[in-house]
Amino acid sequence: MSQQLITDPQPVKGSRVQHGLVVVNTGNGKGKTTAALGVVMRAWGRDMRVIVLQFLKHTGARFGEQRAAQKMGVEMRSLGDGFTWRSKDLNQTGKIAQQQWRACQDVIRSGQYDIVVLDELTYAITFGWVPVQEVIATLRERPPHMHVIITGRDAPQELVDFADLVTEMREVKHPYQKGIKAQPGLEF
Amino acid sequence: MSQQLITDPQPVKGSRVQHGLVVVNTGNGKGKTTAALGVVMRAWGRDMRVIVLQFLKHTGARFGEQRAAQKMGVEMRSLGDGFTWRSKDLNQTGKIAQQQWRACQDVIRSGQYDIVVLDELTYAITFGWVPVQEVIATLRERPPHMHVIITGRDAPQELVDFADLVTEMREVKHPYQKGIKAQPGLEF
Repeated sequence: MSQQLITDPQPVKGSRVQHGLVVVNTGNGKGKTTAALGVVMRAWGRDMRVIVLQFLKHTGARFGEQRAAQKMGVEMRSLGDGFTWRSKDLNQTGKIAQQQWRACQDVIRSGQYDIVVLDELTYAITFGWVPVQEVIATLRERPPHMHVIITGRDAPQELVDFADLVTEMREVKHPYQKGIKAQPGLEF
Repeated sequence: MSQQLITDPQPVKGSRVQHGLVVVNTGNGKGKTTAALGVVMRAWGRDMRVIVLQFLKHTGARFGEQRAAQKMGVEMRSLGDGFTWRSKDLNQTGKIAQQQWRACQDVIRSGQYDIVVLDELTYAITFGWVPVQEVIATLRERPPHMHVIITGRDAPQELVDFADLVTEMREVKHPYQKGIKAQPGLEF
């Protein structure tokens, strides 16, 4: 799987990144993944090399971001089978999460991207499947001109301490509270 | 100017929006505009009709989002001359802000979009140039299948009360604190 992840790279050229940052979007509100997508759009506008690696399973549907990435030629990969909260075999889910993380490590170490998005990684850490110290070690040893963006609730304190830019997306008001379902285009 | 704003619309077709929402991204952290851009990318992936109207002046530089929007064929307009915090003539700036708001009203009332982003509108309200009740009245009377996304710090409470989905982007940690400048692609 890791081989598959680094095939078909965008053309290699000098890095556009002046100072690689580790960015964490966390909190219980909307906008963690969405803001990462906004960065993807900006970076794509600047012809930077971007990849989005998604940990959570998005069953079947081709969501707006996947359709957009395809149209833009941005690499966006659902890692392995992903995992869901509905899985009954948490042991098996943990193994999948660890495989996903190995694939992320391969992508980071390949040095072929200016920006790597690890979407929903925090859950794999929170559930104890991926040690936070291993994540930090990989981030510390990454190519110096690479930005890495990590999204997900409950980012562990060690990751927050290590990161350069941390934003908490805090839910002030959500339409679920009024019984309105998630809207296509807006939320997925 | 308002005429210019509604020329060259994307092809008119049935709305893809099931239930139009008013979304507010506020707070002192990163990600308010960026998350709005993420929605733009998603919606573009779904062939929805999107427009981004920017209140703040972005002098000279063609930022990543503008380059991306051009490549995608998404309408993104700096309203009039925009305004900056450096303006010495606040009276004149207020007039510009009011003209910008009229242009937004025209776009909203045109009904030609599924999603309208009013980027950095809150400042025009906070400075007293655009009455919040007028904004709310325009939102209330908008086409029912239109999402409107408003970004900017210090969203007024009346707007929060009226909105359907409100997220506070809270700064936990910022690289400015370590003397690292804003990075192209990542932050603009």
